[in-house]
Amino acid sequence: MTLPIDTPAVLVDLNIAEANVRAFQDYCDSHGLQLRPHIKTHKLPRLAEYQIEQGAIGITCQKITEAEAMIAGGDMRDILITYNILGQDKVARLRALSEQVRLSVVADNAAVVEGLSAGFADAKNPLPVLVECNTGADRCGVETPAEALELASAINAAPGLRFAGLMTYPPTGGATQVTTWLAEAKDLIEATDLTVEVISSGGSPDMWRAHHMPLATEYRIGTYIYNDRSLVTRGTCDWDDCALTVLATVVSTPSKTRAIIDAGSKVLTSDLLGLEGFGHVLGHPDLKIDQLSEEHGRITSDQPTGLRVGDQLRIVPNHACVVSNMLDHVTLIRGDAIIGTEPVAARGQVW
Amino acid sequence: MTLPIDTPAVLVDLNIAEANVRAFQDYCDSHGLQLRPHIKTHKLPRLAEYQIEQGAIGITCQKITEAEAMIAGGDMRDILITYNILGQDKVARLRALSEQVRLSVVADNAAVVEGLSAGFADAKNPLPVLVECNTGADRCGVETPAEALELASAINAAPGLRFAGLMTYPPTGGATQVTTWLAEAKDLIEATDLTVEVISSGGSPDMWRAHHMPLATEYRIGTYIYNDRSLVTRGTCDWDDCALTVLATVVSTPSKTRAIIDAGSKVLTSDLLGLEGFGHVLGHPDLKIDQLSEEHGRITSDQPTGLRVGDQLRIVPNHACVVSNMLDHVTLIRGDAIIGTEPVAARGQVW
Repeated sequence: MTLPIDTPAVLVDLNIAEANVRAFQDYCDSHGLQLRPHIKTHKLPRLAEYQIEQGAIGITCQKITEAEAMIAGGDMRDILITYNILGQDKVARLRALSEQVRLSVVADNAAVVEGLSAGFADAKNPLPVLVECNTGADRCGVETPAEALELASAINAAPGLRFAGLMTYPPTGGATQVTTWLAEAKDLIEATDLTVEVISSGGSPDMWRAHHMPLATEYRIGTYIYNDRSLVTRGTCDWDDCALTVLATVVSTPSKTRAIIDAGSKVLTSDLLGLEGFGHVLGHPDLKIDQLSEEHGRITSDQPTGLRVGDQLRIVPNHACVVSNMLDHVTLIRGDAIIGTEPVAARGQVW
Repeated sequence: MTLPIDTPAVLVDLNIAEANVRAFQDYCDSHGLQLRPHIKTHKLPRLAEYQIEQGAIGITCQKITEAEAMIAGGDMRDILITYNILGQDKVARLRALSEQVRLSVVADNAAVVEGLSAGFADAKNPLPVLVECNTGADRCGVETPAEALELASAINAAPGLRFAGLMTYPPTGGATQVTTWLAEAKDLIEATDLTVEVISSGGSPDMWRAHHMPLATEYRIGTYIYNDRSLVTRGTCDWDDCALTVLATVVSTPSKTRAIIDAGSKVLTSDLLGLEGFGHVLGHPDLKIDQLSEEHGRITSDQPTGLRVGDQLRIVPNHACVVSNMLDHVTLIRGDAIIGTEPVAARGQVW
């Protein structure tokens, strides 16, 4: 089937996306887990609204400008920004956001706490701040439960702020070590007069094992709404569960075993996530996308590719979230039906 | 020095960019080479205009929408689109472009030639079409000089088209094999009644050896205006010649040997170009950017990083062209002076 869509294009099948949202919401409901989806995967207010309608308690954003774009485009009421916000200008925008929605943020160091406090000292309501904890992913986060206690106390002592709990971006497969870490921090903190209201964990690869970490009160997850090649490869989902695909056209067949498509790194991105090649061509398990330049994707095969110039291919990218960030619009579909194009409201929002 | 710029930001130092343009234009002038810069690196009409003012014969675009953005934003008169244009809608837009500027395109297969001919059969002037040749880079291009002759003849026989020459995206370091290939094709073609007016080659890594391929009449090159870590590593330029840098802020210092910056793959991209790590931190040769997620860049070092939360860093990315494609605006500077922000006119133009 050739779709009447100019390629390259990013297609989002709403039927699949909505089914993915409902399936994981059902799972969370059955395990008493609160779900707080990360909008970085879709960057579309309409899908954030769908996630909330289905039972999500709010959304997660990484940056202030993502939150601003979500509020501008949809009915958002509860946003957690899981990022160290630094700088007077950013804190001022955060303050403005806090007057529009129930807002919380994270911090993993005293400089961030001081900056937040300076901006919120005269706020009507204190800003809830979670302590980000490094439970093994080695990105941000305080390094030990003792440091978590120290920062929690500093937050609670800071004018305009309120300690609200613990947040971690956990290592995949690390439920046991994460639980041990967070339990120790919780005990230390609650041995003082502080309460750990929220323990926020997440991660798509471990999504169906979220109940193995009963200490967590909420689960943050992004990719599950679209899924991608990395999650299929890890066994989290199947190809039929992949809502985001890249539609590309074969523009050259220089040899029997090589073809060139019009989707390169400006659509598929160079993200590998530990995989070989740059995506999975649906219906053609023999084809490899072995090289990308900006506008060219090179397809090779051990056998003749059978491809002809003009053929359309649908590709499941390695990493859906980064593909959402490449084009100004996505094309919404439901199965074979084309619904229309949708601006990617939070695309390129890195501040 | 801390710049009063919200981070992450893409900085373009116009002093360096202009010096890079002049230096390679001087080189081309001294060797009698015509220069046709590829705008994919900067995507800014003002810099394309500067390249033309300094002596470039025109510009190269990869996609129709890039050419449209360049024409809309600047005084462009001669554009080569080095891509197989396929599909009625795209050919119709190409036809419209051909009425605004001196336009030429490439083709490497009969289907593309047929589509172009269908759209230009009743055009006032025939569309010049170059045959794209695979001289060893194994991307697009006819595979042999004999196929080049065959396609050249087909182009010339096609209503509305005119065979204009040969184009190749050459393998780095391949001057000898490329010259042999193209000379053979030229001889074969000119043994008929056709003339090979243009032989278009290019590539930044070999830019200072462009005169080793005297057969080429024009040189296409993009990255040279900004340069990047890949070109410094290959010895093509020095750090001081890098006009594009990413300004980032340290947002976390979880340990003495690890720091996190607010530039991740949404700014630096995951392009490696054969390198290790995701960019070079200017002034800090000991620091490695060893991991990116979308909004976090992880810096590690064998020694204490010496970084503090709030520190600004300037990073030369692995690949400048793809970084230009990530944000809607770049910040123009001249040394320490901030000139202002500039919309990236051709960002995300993949059609």
